[in-house]
Amino acid sequence: MRGHARALVVNSGNANAFTGKSGRAATKLTAKIAAEAADCELSDVWLASTGVIGEPLDASKFAGVMQRLVADASPGGWDDAAKAIMTTDTFPKGAAAIARLGTYAVTICGIAKGAGMIAPDMATMLSFVFTDAPIAPVVLRSLLQKGVEDTFNAVTIDGDTSTSDTLLAFATAAAEARGVARITRLSDPRLPGLRKGFNAVLANLAEQVARDGEGARKLVEIVVEGAVSKKSARRIALSIANSPLVKTAIAGEDANWGRVVMAVGKAGEPANRDRLTIWFNGIRLAHKGERDPSYDEAAVSAAMRKPEISVKVALGLGKGRDRVLTCDLTKEYVAINGDYRS
Amino acid sequence: MRGHARALVVNSGNANAFTGKSGRAATKLTAKIAAEAADCELSDVWLASTGVIGEPLDASKFAGVMQRLVADASPGGWDDAAKAIMTTDTFPKGAAAIARLGTYAVTICGIAKGAGMIAPDMATMLSFVFTDAPIAPVVLRSLLQKGVEDTFNAVTIDGDTSTSDTLLAFATAAAEARGVARITRLSDPRLPGLRKGFNAVLANLAEQVARDGEGARKLVEIVVEGAVSKKSARRIALSIANSPLVKTAIAGEDANWGRVVMAVGKAGEPANRDRLTIWFNGIRLAHKGERDPSYDEAAVSAAMRKPEISVKVALGLGKGRDRVLTCDLTKEYVAINGDYRS
Repeated sequence: MRGHARALVVNSGNANAFTGKSGRAATKLTAKIAAEAADCELSDVWLASTGVIGEPLDASKFAGVMQRLVADASPGGWDDAAKAIMTTDTFPKGAAAIARLGTYAVTICGIAKGAGMIAPDMATMLSFVFTDAPIAPVVLRSLLQKGVEDTFNAVTIDGDTSTSDTLLAFATAAAEARGVARITRLSDPRLPGLRKGFNAVLANLAEQVARDGEGARKLVEIVVEGAVSKKSARRIALSIANSPLVKTAIAGEDANWGRVVMAVGKAGEPANRDRLTIWFNGIRLAHKGERDPSYDEAAVSAAMRKPEISVKVALGLGKGRDRVLTCDLTKEYVAINGDYRS
Repeated sequence: MRGHARALVVNSGNANAFTGKSGRAATKLTAKIAAEAADCELSDVWLASTGVIGEPLDASKFAGVMQRLVADASPGGWDDAAKAIMTTDTFPKGAAAIARLGTYAVTICGIAKGAGMIAPDMATMLSFVFTDAPIAPVVLRSLLQKGVEDTFNAVTIDGDTSTSDTLLAFATAAAEARGVARITRLSDPRLPGLRKGFNAVLANLAEQVARDGEGARKLVEIVVEGAVSKKSARRIALSIANSPLVKTAIAGEDANWGRVVMAVGKAGEPANRDRLTIWFNGIRLAHKGERDPSYDEAAVSAAMRKPEISVKVALGLGKGRDRVLTCDLTKEYVAINGDYRS
């Protein structure tokens, strides 16, 4: 985070991770080739890789294509970039928002590749967000750090975290040429508007990543409220979101609130069984520690067949609330991650 | 743990969990029926339940059968008991050991039901261990507390913990009638021999639970050595054992050591990439932060087809070592836990 960038090189197919000295040499060569092509300093080149771990990356392959990539770069290239970084993603992921800075409009644009496996190796989430707003590095850093908390940091597919997860934000300042004054301080009155647009792009991309989790058929939202703190709510929500038993139940379209109780319990956070209330897609299934006898089984079954499932848990202890996104755990997940070697 | 017991009642089919007041009434009624049948105090009855969560348990059903169960009780009933508590277990789980106390022999016997689901609800592990050795409660407690550390507490199927996991140990003191003097102190020189037999039964049962994990086709041992402490080694081993990506790779018979690296990293314990060495079934795949170029792919493929897989990780930092048992993550796991509602 030196606050300076001129070029971003992303390759897929090889994560260049656990490759030792040859891996370090490969990153240096990639940066050198990119710096020459983009006519910039070596230190102004940013790199990201996704793919197989432990395989040497032959960076010399980039020599033949980098000049052309620079020559062909265009403002309309977002879709191509989003597609180029896909691995087992089932759709390219992009989002954009317009933010008002006084009388001017600026754009925030982002792309992501999801936590689909890059065959035949590990899940990697890469995301890159750009704005033409002229903003100082300290401001951009604030936008990103605060923005990820409830977006990318609130998404989990399988609880496994990649060696290569990357989220980078860039401000080109191109809007300065249109007369937009530079934002240099966090107290700038135009910042809340920009932050809103920035967060919308992050939230949109993060949701796409969850929706396209490996083998996923359902986007699952976990809302925890009434916890002793937001931090506690987050831990409980992640415990539910990462529970294989909760995720397989949702794959089976079963409103199995007993497994939610289990996941609340194993989170190790303050919780009182006799105050727990649980809803699936708005239908209350358990209340104050017992099954809610009033719910309609047919309505619950219909609700569970929807492609989006919301699990809400009220703890009744405090005001802590949080929300995370995940997906169901299907046989396809196992197939994607286990079947590629016969 | 009051140190006294006369009867143990275990029911399957209903976990009697999250059932509120009616659940408490059901346990009281069960204990009352058992106490009358066994002619003992209410407080001498121990209970365990496994099955659906949140469904009321009709304990009045026990009234008709408890007298007969007491009348039919026999020393040869272990197999029947092991079978009776099975749910989706594919085989009954029992183990026994003989321990020498001076010139006398005592027996330790145990049964368990595994972390297979009780259709249609959550995983529950129940285990009961018995010995005829005459030992004081403080001694039995020590045997159990120290014994579980590297046996039942070192087994994980999917990282989800049940509301109902139970492990109880009982000493009948029946051997006292044969002249075995009571062990009342932890300093008793006969205790190490008894502990050895006790631990062997616990280890045997725990291994059976891992082997019979839901949908499991492979028993997987994770050994971590060279960690900064045993505690750190345990955390890293559990991170590997609970990783869906590691477990699906093993199901796919893929020696995917890159995912092991990932799981070491996400454990959050001290580790140095450049010192990591990884073996699958004795074959070194990665050494000092890079792929070991010398391994034979055909030998690795053959090793991965075995029903028992050992993953060993050396961190090269200290003397901390630990071992946990788990199983692979298969499509059958998802089917068992997600498919029972159409």
